[in-house]
Amino acid sequence: MDLPRRVTIREVGPRDGLQAEAPLPVHQRAGLIDMLTGANLPKIEAVSFVSPKAVPAMADAAEVWRLVRRRPEVSYSALVPNRRGAEAALEAGGFASLQAFVSASDGYNTHNLGKTVEESLGDVRDVVDAAAAAGVPVEVSISCAFGDPYGGEVPVELVVSVAERVAEFGAAGVSLGDTTGMTNPRKVWELIPLLRERLPGLQLNLHFHDSRGAALANVVAAMEVGVDEFDASVGGLGGSPFAGGQSGANGNLATEDLVAMLMGMGIQTGVDVMALFTAARMLEGLVGHAVPGRAWRTDYPELGWASPL
Amino acid sequence: MDLPRRVTIREVGPRDGLQAEAPLPVHQRAGLIDMLTGANLPKIEAVSFVSPKAVPAMADAAEVWRLVRRRPEVSYSALVPNRRGAEAALEAGGFASLQAFVSASDGYNTHNLGKTVEESLGDVRDVVDAAAAAGVPVEVSISCAFGDPYGGEVPVELVVSVAERVAEFGAAGVSLGDTTGMTNPRKVWELIPLLRERLPGLQLNLHFHDSRGAALANVVAAMEVGVDEFDASVGGLGGSPFAGGQSGANGNLATEDLVAMLMGMGIQTGVDVMALFTAARMLEGLVGHAVPGRAWRTDYPELGWASPL
Repeated sequence: MDLPRRVTIREVGPRDGLQAEAPLPVHQRAGLIDMLTGANLPKIEAVSFVSPKAVPAMADAAEVWRLVRRRPEVSYSALVPNRRGAEAALEAGGFASLQAFVSASDGYNTHNLGKTVEESLGDVRDVVDAAAAAGVPVEVSISCAFGDPYGGEVPVELVVSVAERVAEFGAAGVSLGDTTGMTNPRKVWELIPLLRERLPGLQLNLHFHDSRGAALANVVAAMEVGVDEFDASVGGLGGSPFAGGQSGANGNLATEDLVAMLMGMGIQTGVDVMALFTAARMLEGLVGHAVPGRAWRTDYPELGWASPL
Repeated sequence: MDLPRRVTIREVGPRDGLQAEAPLPVHQRAGLIDMLTGANLPKIEAVSFVSPKAVPAMADAAEVWRLVRRRPEVSYSALVPNRRGAEAALEAGGFASLQAFVSASDGYNTHNLGKTVEESLGDVRDVVDAAAAAGVPVEVSISCAFGDPYGGEVPVELVVSVAERVAEFGAAGVSLGDTTGMTNPRKVWELIPLLRERLPGLQLNLHFHDSRGAALANVVAAMEVGVDEFDASVGGLGGSPFAGGQSGANGNLATEDLVAMLMGMGIQTGVDVMALFTAARMLEGLVGHAVPGRAWRTDYPELGWASPL
């Protein structure tokens, strides 16, 4: 099989992972970002400039960001919901990119954001415009790109059309989210080649959840059709509180599970897997419950890692 | 991608799943087999005729087997360690096949069985001989076929040579075990085509563990090179007590996770996934702790299944 030699991982734990948790002190949120920086992750979604009423765990984004011990080789990003969020992020400064978001289908968009897809696309356009004036690129997360828990099947044409819209606005890339872990390799093979054919210049990142245990299968399927950038969350922490089921049951793909598999396959990530194992263990203490990631719980005789359990 | 249209699943929960648990009453062990029969699993490893001193949870195999409400369309098998075990299974009668076992490498074989691979191959030969006299086919589980926690890398040539030996004895098939979940798609693509080239007539089953979260990725990789039979354990229960780490951390691929993914991909299994979800939930009460399978914990809007958590 012809797979990429190198894969880029965008760590989303400090934002997507923590957003549904009880709020942590700002210095611990910054500390988690520092640990992930120390694990040599090339991209980290650090904070979110959303309403602290809507998402209390993401409050005080500017203060967290001020405390982060940034390294120049890491591309940090901030999630922003609209022009106001973008302006706050740009004022804080230092982000390599901003992350806007919209769902591929109205069902989830309405439940998650209280707006239609069309209304959210207006926000995305505002974010791109504001960021463009400051010379900062924008990537757009398109959620439910592989299925919508409120609307079932999401036609590939619908996903491509939303991606085309954000590309027209001037977005640098898209991240297609399997927000509730509904997808499988067959759907990946259906959507991705079509998207790349229609939007060959657009940067592409995939964001899988491991709700059904198939996240790594989807990663391999995506690599087979040329995808070389993935989101992941340390410990598998995360999962939208609006997505149904328990947070853990809708957890993100665990960064350490992803890195460990890629290492075994000889695909480079540049990430220090042992530092991730340590971060995942510490995370359980930080959030006060078990996290769904698997790799650090077991033995890796080939790495000299013994299960701490 | 050219995948099989239909996949056969061999359920190993009643044996591999329960063997490291505190012993259950025989009627509950038979009841679990009945639930799995009711889920339309085509093959079920029902019992194990091993020493009750070595594996207390597998004691009273003949009594469990007597209580099972067998259906003629299900192929039930029994695990047997040697000639004596084979004779006990043949005396109990009614098994479609016997399952013998050996490791691909001495490291694990010595720790798990207290014998060299060569000595275990002698047992396998005895089992095949005893079963042949009764007209019963034998499949041989070759553990650590993708890596040995005590010996590291297991060369593909070593695995093929062990498979060749058991084929010479007259075994009908082999089940290659990734006993501690060490493998990845690349190793699958390396071993399987070589094995099929060298032993084209041998039935092939793969047995993955989800210790590192990559079991379904390995299943898809294996289907891509033509494999169409897999072991799985309801709830992901199992994992050798000799394999290091915690039982849960070395859990089997969960049958319901496998069936759910294959269903989503349009690959037929004939298995009733809802009945499996129910069995996995009940299993947690039966064994008294959480099991690692993921699928039943989350929502399946496309099936009308809502997470019970």
